[in-house]
Amino acid sequence: MVYKYIDIVGTSTKGIDDAIRDAIEESSKTIKNIKWAELGRVTILVKKGVLEYQAEVKIGFEISRSIEE
Amino acid sequence: MVYKYIDIVGTSTKGIDDAIRDAIEESSKTIKNIKWAELGRVTILVKKGVLEYQAEVKIGFEISRSIEE
Amino acid sequence: MVYKYIDIVGTSTKGIDDAIRDAIEESSKTIKNIKWAELGRVTILVKKGVLEYQAEVKIGFEISRSIEE
Amino acid sequence: MVYKYIDIVGTSTKGIDDAIRDAIEESSKTIKNIKWAELGRVTILVKKGVLEYQAEVKIGFEISRSIEE
Amino acid sequence: MVYKYIDIVGTSTKGIDDAIRDAIEESSKTIKNIKWAELGRVTILVKKGVLEYQAEVKIGFEISRSIEE
Amino acid sequence: MVYKYIDIVGTSTKGIDDAIRDAIEESSKTIKNIKWAELGRVTILVKKGVLEYQAEVKIGFEISRSIEE
Amino acid sequence: MVYKYIDIVGTSTKGIDDAIRDAIEESSKTIKNIKWAELGRVTILVKKGVLEYQAEVKIGFEISRSIEE
Amino acid sequence: MVYKYIDIVGTSTKGIDDAIRDAIEESSKTIKNIKWAELGRVTILVKKGVLEYQAEVKIGFEISRSIEE
Amino acid sequence: MVYKYIDIVGTSTKGIDDAIRDAIEESSKTIKNIKWAELGRVTILVKKGVLEYQAEVKIGFEISRSIEE
Amino acid sequence: MVYKYIDIVGTSTKGIDDAIRDAIEESSKTIKNIKWAELGRVTILVKKGVLEYQAEVKIGFEISRSIEE
Amino acid sequence: MVYKYIDIVGTSTKGIDDAIRDAIEESSKTIKNIKWAELGRVTILVKKGVLEYQAEVKIGFEISRSIEE
Amino acid sequence: MVYKYIDIVGTSTKGIDDAIRDAIEESSKTIKNIKWAELGRVTILVKKGVLEYQAEVKIGFEISRSIEE
Repeated sequence: MVYKYIDIVGTSTKGIDDAIRDAIEESSKTIKNIKWAELGRVTILVKKGVLEYQAEVKIGFEISRSIEE
Repeated sequence: MVYKYIDIVGTSTKGIDDAIRDAIEESSKTIKNIKWAELGRVTILVKKGVLEYQAEVKIGFEISRSIEE
Repeated sequence: MVYKYIDIVGTSTKGIDDAIRDAIEESSKTIKNIKWAELGRVTILVKKGVLEYQAEVKIGFEISRSIEE
Repeated sequence: MVYKYIDIVGTSTKGIDDAIRDAIEESSKTIKNIKWAELGRVTILVKKGVLEYQAEVKIGFEISRSIEE
Repeated sequence: MVYKYIDIVGTSTKGIDDAIRDAIEESSKTIKNIKWAELGRVTILVKKGVLEYQAEVKIGFEISRSIEE
Repeated sequence: MVYKYIDIVGTSTKGIDDAIRDAIEESSKTIKNIKWAELGRVTILVKKGVLEYQAEVKIGFEISRSIEE
Repeated sequence: MVYKYIDIVGTSTKGIDDAIRDAIEESSKTIKNIKWAELGRVTILVKKGVLEYQAEVKIGFEISRSIEE
Repeated sequence: MVYKYIDIVGTSTKGIDDAIRDAIEESSKTIKNIKWAELGRVTILVKKGVLEYQAEVKIGFEISRSIEE
Repeated sequence: MVYKYIDIVGTSTKGIDDAIRDAIEESSKTIKNIKWAELGRVTILVKKGVLEYQAEVKIGFEISRSIEE
Repeated sequence: MVYKYIDIVGTSTKGIDDAIRDAIEESSKTIKNIKWAELGRVTILVKKGVLEYQAEVKIGFEISRSIEE
Repeated sequence: MVYKYIDIVGTSTKGIDDAIRDAIEESSKTIKNIKWAELGRVTILVKKGVLEYQAEVKIGFEISRSIEE
Repeated sequence: MVYKYIDIVGTSTKGIDDAIRDAIEESSKTIKNIKWAELGRVTILVKKGVLEYQAEVKIGFEISRSIEE
């Protein structure tokens, strides 16, 4: 088994959990075998008093045969 | 005063806060004097589209007399 | 443009998102141009079974002219 | 010269060296100019007493002209 | 909004600033919405007395719809 | 599901893979549900020309009901 | 030879050296074969002008036969 | 002698050296005894093909008598 | 409750404990509610054979109402 | 007792264990009292499909009387 | 092939690139086979408004036969 | 000005301050221009109940003309 990581930043005005979910759901539209993810840096943008949570997420997925760069 | 840390991984499908709570509540069943905890790595398992948040938590508690390993 | 960071610890019994919001809202009472924040260490105090989430947050804001220490 | 990194996890029941080789060989099926790799986190899965070594490897390769995301 | 990072190494005999610019410009040939980049490790190759600065750069860009791995 | 980590140092004169195996096998004598391990610092003792590889390993196992400190 | 680490926090109003000694001495009451320790984070509590030094110490000891969790 | 650090982000379209200089010069308008600075994270904003280098700089200065928060 | 950190470097020719105390005592002249501190980097200046211990200390204090930058 | 560290990179086409051994054996030709070593970064060069494992190793040895730079 | 690292701090009033070059050129006066260098911490001394950039650089060079400490 | 670092481990049964002093004094027997030192990892050996503090210290000194490896 070989896995690959990609680094995605999900965003949400609700919170960190939702920003993580955003990153994984968006990724799952084009990547089939997502197995796990790992939370990295969390940044919060402040725009006119509204907070946007940004979660850097390393997403790990299985590669069936060969790695397409 | 002497304190000891143990490393616990709590899990939850709701989110990180709940996974932390899970780790602390499960630990408090056998450990009396939990004082604080510290969040470590957060991993998210993806099983058929459902996310399971896993929170590594260092749990600090007071040791009254001697350290039982 | 020059920015400054300050290190604030927000607290909440609800969870991490709320503790971050607490830090930013309290800071915004005296600091005008908050642009972003970055989550640092998360500690959880345990007091009689109640959890208090503490979020260390680096808050970045724009300095219009000179840096007041 | 411009290089790109990708993050691959190779696996092996033999050991770390073999898991690294696995990641590089699998990657080389679709990537031409692999120049070097760097070992990251090593995790060991335990399944019914059998160990599976997992080596996170950053693989660096030369990009001839433009970066295909 | 969802963002993706890629890891690129730019090179230059002039210096670090130029190596960073090299990485971003090369990436922008195929990636449309580059928003920011972050400097990682800086290595300097020494070949017959000539220095080649190598700047590892994480490049962040906006993903319009879906993540193409 | 709740997991616990313990920190074990396995040793071997053969190499790192074997030192990791040593730590996991010794731990499995008294711990039932070992699921995974993670390699930490690797130190090599040198005694009269013979190398002893020491692998720090965090061992993760499932806790069925309550955490026995 | 297999070793185990435990994480202890020793405290002292005198200083860091004494807080380390406190952690090791308290641990040695129940653990026989302590071989070495490693200093981690040092925190200082301030209570009405009095400083309490808290030294996080990883304590390494030899396990004779099996690991009792 | 007692010193204090503040965290400033200087910016420049020329490069990192200039962004550092920007942070120190802006700080020196209101802080008298700047002694040294230390480079932290370097981020590059990309706006319509123009790069803005952002240098996080910890600035250390001498405090003559008391610390004004 | 909201807390703020400031970064202070205390110095002493006696040792690290004393340099930490120096940083906290000097800070307490103008800051009322110091609760804890955390030791960072320790540097030792050597001047004509005399050692000056420099302790970087993050000092945490309670903010009653609003954050004065 | 006073010890000194030197940083050596050993190389091997066989694997990491062998690259570590290479670094220690080469060092022991001119350094008498090597006591221990610690593994740092592991890099793998890829040359025409052949892997060369490079192990950065900090080597600690006893200094009998004075430190020869 | 065996390599050795030494840690050098180069200085320059011009900038970081020049401080790195300073460290490598000074080292090359007595060390023959310098292959690469890696940038570490960057500190800036401020003396009467003049900045001196200090670049910590790990310099890697090939050792032909034996390691002279 | 060019500086060089060496890595020394000083030891003492008294405490960390004394172990640091040990490393610097021993180094100063053969190195003339020691300017500063930086504390790294602190390990404590436990031998029959007696503690030996070991302080890893990076020692920085000025190089007058050329770097003797």
